[in-house]
Amino acid sequence: MTAISIPDDSLFGVDNLPYGVFSTAGTDPRIGVRVGDHVVDLAAALGDDVFAQPTLNAFMAQGRDRWIDVRARITALVAGDIADDAVHAVEDVTMHLPIAVADYVDFYASENHASNLGRLFRPQNPDPLMPNWKHLPVGYHGRSSTVVASGVDIVRPRGQRKGPNDEAPVFGPSVRLDIEAEMGFIVGVGSPMGSSITPDRFAEHCFGAVILNDWSARDIQAWEYVPLGPNLGKSFATSISPWVVPLLALEAARIDTPVQDPTPLPYLQGDEKWGLDIDLAVEWNGEIVTRPPYAQMYWSPAQMLAHTTVNGAAASTGDLFGSGTISGPEKNQRGAFIELTWGGAEPVTVAGEERTFLQDGDEVSISATAPGVNGGRIGFGEVRARILPAD
Amino acid sequence: MTAISIPDDSLFGVDNLPYGVFSTAGTDPRIGVRVGDHVVDLAAALGDDVFAQPTLNAFMAQGRDRWIDVRARITALVAGDIADDAVHAVEDVTMHLPIAVADYVDFYASENHASNLGRLFRPQNPDPLMPNWKHLPVGYHGRSSTVVASGVDIVRPRGQRKGPNDEAPVFGPSVRLDIEAEMGFIVGVGSPMGSSITPDRFAEHCFGAVILNDWSARDIQAWEYVPLGPNLGKSFATSISPWVVPLLALEAARIDTPVQDPTPLPYLQGDEKWGLDIDLAVEWNGEIVTRPPYAQMYWSPAQMLAHTTVNGAAASTGDLFGSGTISGPEKNQRGAFIELTWGGAEPVTVAGEERTFLQDGDEVSISATAPGVNGGRIGFGEVRARILPAD
Repeated sequence: MTAISIPDDSLFGVDNLPYGVFSTAGTDPRIGVRVGDHVVDLAAALGDDVFAQPTLNAFMAQGRDRWIDVRARITALVAGDIADDAVHAVEDVTMHLPIAVADYVDFYASENHASNLGRLFRPQNPDPLMPNWKHLPVGYHGRSSTVVASGVDIVRPRGQRKGPNDEAPVFGPSVRLDIEAEMGFIVGVGSPMGSSITPDRFAEHCFGAVILNDWSARDIQAWEYVPLGPNLGKSFATSISPWVVPLLALEAARIDTPVQDPTPLPYLQGDEKWGLDIDLAVEWNGEIVTRPPYAQMYWSPAQMLAHTTVNGAAASTGDLFGSGTISGPEKNQRGAFIELTWGGAEPVTVAGEERTFLQDGDEVSISATAPGVNGGRIGFGEVRARILPAD
Repeated sequence: MTAISIPDDSLFGVDNLPYGVFSTAGTDPRIGVRVGDHVVDLAAALGDDVFAQPTLNAFMAQGRDRWIDVRARITALVAGDIADDAVHAVEDVTMHLPIAVADYVDFYASENHASNLGRLFRPQNPDPLMPNWKHLPVGYHGRSSTVVASGVDIVRPRGQRKGPNDEAPVFGPSVRLDIEAEMGFIVGVGSPMGSSITPDRFAEHCFGAVILNDWSARDIQAWEYVPLGPNLGKSFATSISPWVVPLLALEAARIDTPVQDPTPLPYLQGDEKWGLDIDLAVEWNGEIVTRPPYAQMYWSPAQMLAHTTVNGAAASTGDLFGSGTISGPEKNQRGAFIELTWGGAEPVTVAGEERTFLQDGDEVSISATAPGVNGGRIGFGEVRARILPAD
C-alpha cells in the first residue's frame, strides 16, 4: 500500500483531481485521476469497470450526482493508503485522448480576438465586430475526427491560398500556420433533440474543461471562409490537453463575465456566474510569448451551450466546444500569433529567432491554471505539439 | 422458401439493391437490402453477423472488394429461392437511420443555387458568386447528432432573427423555415490523418448515396452566419432517406460535370467521371413543386471528398457529406423554397393554398431516381418529414 505524497506547490492537489485516460507499457488505455505527480488507476482502486474503459464517455453519461459521489470517494481514497498496483508515477504513463468526441463546435467569444481579427480580415469595415457579435455567441461546427491528444505531431496542412496580389489561387503547404489558445468544454450529459439547456443548468450537463489549441492555417482560411465559414483552414487538427478538470473543481474560479451590453436575450441570461478566472500561458519553442486571460471572455460557456441547443439541436455525451481564441486587451495577452504579430507585420523574437507564423519543427505548449477551493491554484496541465513539414 | 417477384417497373430491381437498416415488430434493427417491394434480411439470408448490426458502418468499413463480393452474393440470392423468414414485405418493416454518422460536411456545389442565394443574401454585391466559388467546393461542417431518418418529425426551431427594419434581434420560432434538396454521400473506408483521397480513388472510399434534406431556418441563418458560417439555422435537423444506394449501382448514372472554367487546381482533377445523372422531385403536401437535376452540379462528389482531405484531415467510416442544394437553371428546378419563392416575394400555390416558407403541419418528401445498368431506372426512395410547431 502507498500513501501518495503531494508537493505543497502542486497544481494537482486534492482540490483538483482531473480525469484522464492513460496506459502503461503493454496495457490498455483506462481512466486515471491525477494526484500530485502520480496517476491513480480508478478501475483498480475503486473496483468499478466504468473506469476500465478507454474514454470518459460512459462515466460522464452517469450524471452529476455520480460525478459528485466519485469525487468524494477519490478524495477519501487519496487521504489514505492505495494499493501499489493502482498508483503510477506520471512520468511512467502515456496519456491518450480522454473522450470520444461527438459534435465539436468552436466559438468566438473573446471581444478582443474578434475585434483584432475583424481589423485584420476586413480592414474596409468601420466596425471590426459584426452586428450580431454582441447578441449571440458566434460559433461554427468543426471536425470531430481530427481532435487529437496533446503530444500528437501536427503535419503542416496543404491547401489553396490567394494573396491580394495573386491573380489565381495557388496550392501548397500553408505559409501562415497559427495557433488559437482556447479552453474546451465537454458535455457529460446531453439533451434530446427538441429540447434546450438553459444557462443555469450548465453544471448538470458540462462535465469539465480542457485546454484546446485550434490550429489555424490563416492563408487557407482567408481564401475559403466566405460565405460558409472556416473549413480546411481549421479541419486538419485540434489538440486538447489530456486532463479533464471537473467543473466541480472550478468553484473558486467562477466570476462574472464582463458587462454584456446590450443585455442578451432572455435565453442567454441566468443567475449563475459562469465567467471563469483561468490564466493561460503560451510557450513557443520553450519561451512564454503570451498570457491570455480567460476572465476577459465576453460570453460564458454556459451561454455557449444554451445557444447551441436553443434551436432544439441535441447535445450528446462527448460533445466538445471551444471558447474561441482567448485574447486580453494587452498585446502580450493575445492568444493567436496572427494577432500577436499583427498579421505577420510585427515579428516577435522567440528563443533568439524572429517569428511571425509557425515554422516546421516549432513546438507550442499551452498551459493553464485557476484558483482552487483550498486557496492555492489548480492546473490544467498543458497541450503540446510539434509542427512537422508537409509531405 | 420464397422467390421474390419484382414488378417490371420497379425502381428496386436487381440493378439497384440498396442497403438499409430495418426492424419488424418486436425485433432489433438490422441490415436489409431492398428488392422490389420486399426487404431481405441479410443476416438471416447470408448467415453473416456483420449484417446483424444496427448500422451499416462495420460492413462499409470492410472495403470495396467486399462490397463487390456481397453484391454478387445478393444478386445470386435473389435469383433463386430465399428462406421465408428472411423476406419481409416493405410495408411490414420500420426503417431506421442507416449509418452512425461520423463527421458531417455540407457543400454548396450548385452554381444556380449559390448564385440565387448570393442575389438574395447579398444583393449589394455585383457578382452573386464569391471569388473562391469556382476554385474550390465551398463547404462547412454540420451537426452529426441531428442527422435523422426519414419519417422523424421536425420541430420548428426557435432562434434569433433580425429583419432589416428591426432595431434589435427578436427571439422566437423561425418564420422562414425551408428545405434544401440534396444528395448525401457516405464514406465507407476512411483515410488517416495526414493523408488525402484523390478524385480518382473516390470509388474505393465512397460506399453509396442517399437523398438528404438540409432543413434551413433562413431568418436565423441570415442573422447569425457572418463571419463563421451557418450554425443554428441548420443544426436543428438534417433528414436522410433510409436506403443507401451503392456507388456500384450508379455506373449508368456517371456523367461529366458541367465544364469547369477556370480549370481547377490539379488536386481537384481526375480521369474518372463523377458527375451523376440523378433526377430529384420535391413534393410539398403531396404536390410536386420542383424537379432539381443533379446532373447540373458544378462540383462532383469525388472533388468534394478530395477537397475535404487535401489538408490532411482524416476521413472516417460513416462520414456523410451533402452536395448542397441542387438547383437547375429553371425556376421549377430550384431545390429550396427560398429560391422557388424568391425570398418569399413570389408565393407558390401548393395543393390549393399559397405558400412561401413551411407552415406547421406541412409535409415534404424528396424522391430521386437514376438510370440503372439494365436500361431502366433505379430509385433512391424518399426522405419525408412533417413540421411540428415549436413548443
